[in-house]
Amino acid sequence: MQKLKQLLKDLEPAIADIINQPGSPRAVYEPISYILGLGGKRIRPAMVLAAYKLYKDDYSPEVMKIAQAVEMFHNFTLLHDDIMDNSPLRRGQETVHIKWDNATAILSGDLLQIEVYEKLADVGNVEILKLFNTMARELCEGQMNDMQFEQMHVVSNEAYLEMIRQKTAVLLGFSLQAGAILGGANKEEGEKLYELGISIGLGFQLMDDYLDSFGETAKVGKRIGGDILEKKKTYLWNEMWGRIDAYTQQEIEAVYTESEVEIIDFIKTKMNESGAMDFTLNLAQNYTSKSLTALNNFRATVGDKGYLEEIVRMLSSREN
Amino acid sequence: MQKLKQLLKDLEPAIADIINQPGSPRAVYEPISYILGLGGKRIRPAMVLAAYKLYKDDYSPEVMKIAQAVEMFHNFTLLHDDIMDNSPLRRGQETVHIKWDNATAILSGDLLQIEVYEKLADVGNVEILKLFNTMARELCEGQMNDMQFEQMHVVSNEAYLEMIRQKTAVLLGFSLQAGAILGGANKEEGEKLYELGISIGLGFQLMDDYLDSFGETAKVGKRIGGDILEKKKTYLWNEMWGRIDAYTQQEIEAVYTESEVEIIDFIKTKMNESGAMDFTLNLAQNYTSKSLTALNNFRATVGDKGYLEEIVRMLSSREN
Repeated sequence: MQKLKQLLKDLEPAIADIINQPGSPRAVYEPISYILGLGGKRIRPAMVLAAYKLYKDDYSPEVMKIAQAVEMFHNFTLLHDDIMDNSPLRRGQETVHIKWDNATAILSGDLLQIEVYEKLADVGNVEILKLFNTMARELCEGQMNDMQFEQMHVVSNEAYLEMIRQKTAVLLGFSLQAGAILGGANKEEGEKLYELGISIGLGFQLMDDYLDSFGETAKVGKRIGGDILEKKKTYLWNEMWGRIDAYTQQEIEAVYTESEVEIIDFIKTKMNESGAMDFTLNLAQNYTSKSLTALNNFRATVGDKGYLEEIVRMLSSREN
Repeated sequence: MQKLKQLLKDLEPAIADIINQPGSPRAVYEPISYILGLGGKRIRPAMVLAAYKLYKDDYSPEVMKIAQAVEMFHNFTLLHDDIMDNSPLRRGQETVHIKWDNATAILSGDLLQIEVYEKLADVGNVEILKLFNTMARELCEGQMNDMQFEQMHVVSNEAYLEMIRQKTAVLLGFSLQAGAILGGANKEEGEKLYELGISIGLGFQLMDDYLDSFGETAKVGKRIGGDILEKKKTYLWNEMWGRIDAYTQQEIEAVYTESEVEIIDFIKTKMNESGAMDFTLNLAQNYTSKSLTALNNFRATVGDKGYLEEIVRMLSSREN
């Protein structure tokens, strides 16, 4: 993962720059520094740079601003989503609406969103601005779909895939497309890279869902079984639900009166026995293979595919 | 007010267009239609058109999009401010976070904000986009200052004027400047119109504060004395507080245990006796005269100043 490490190193000054913003009143700027400073893999800005590297080696100021913009936008969505989802923790630390309050979290998020558009205005590329807007609109739609699914008993996997496309994949697609456009990609290449980002995003999210139930805590870095306890309508859950008979569905409803360990154990067994586990893992891996093949077939003009390839492999293995 | 009526008539299709948006899931689009459909004076889009009319008579598609954008942005700020301020009513109807819930109100606001930037991207003028961002950032800072003032015992009138400049005036300034730029204004003219918008906004807000205590319900369209009951640190309040002695300050603190009618009556008397009432009214009227003089001296190239003049007069008299 030498090349990915290099990208993350290249990003450091740009990330430090958005974390350490001045501005007054401090009460609205501090939460922005706080959430941006919580860390994370910085995978979206790395994807911007990796797509740019398909064309050019030395970064332009514009590509760094787009890298900043996608990381800021991602954190804006986290900040507001955490309020909507009543999440107390983010990366092991208090969320902004808990550490401060709802009003501060709403307003800091709004300001962060405006700062994203300041970066986009500095880049001054109206095509990229329009692509960003389309992506951002879909992401909001995805968040609403996600919230609505929580109220529903059954969600089709078609609807679920569309939701994770909106909520996760489109921002990865935009990151690649915008980085490539700034590197000099033509329209068709830009669109292909957007589709590659979608495929990466779907594979990433499906693997994330899979690991939430079947990963190892040490590798995944969080407690296993959270989705199961929340009865989250993930692909894994929906697939299991569609494969089991009415009697087993009743058994599953009933097990939620038992202890957490028993719930997780029982549902995992049903996910396994029904074939939903293998099917989901297989689908996630298919998206990854598809991504790697698409990247392999991609006709980059002069640049280096190695950066993006490492990102795809890292996201699919989740070993780092 | 024939010319203002004409502007509002010209705006009707553009306003109907932003109210009647399709889009799915409906759960995130309906609240946008709802808040935009609650009405209001549509004064900001009218200002965009009025500034454009200083230069050209027939509207371009771009100027209508900017008119839509400022109305949408204004409603975005209302939508989120109502959550932050726990306001149950907006224009006599339930606010979005009451009619739906906080999560829906946050997300619909975020989406509305993105739609504002879609309009700006369609216009494709990077200079206007940058002016918009500067304005939007200041508006967020103003909202935070406003919230912080609520926790403070004393606010200087210098700080208060700066807060209302950020929270109210900059959007009026942007509306005039952007409309004028699209009409063909040069840089200096655009900046002069921005300053005119600031002056209009300060006069408007000071008059609004004044009328909240000293207006007539029939004309102002809301109950008189709300700011006093909330102990809101308006210019009127701050000015009174600085003019009275410590004994009267204690009397004022004490009166808040009495009935609402007694509180309002007592504070209004003190505002009057201390000279704060006249001073505030006078300052508001000074901003209006200053605005009318600036408009009178403004060297418009070919257009009609009458539209903007009617708006300034309407906002200062608040008779309509």
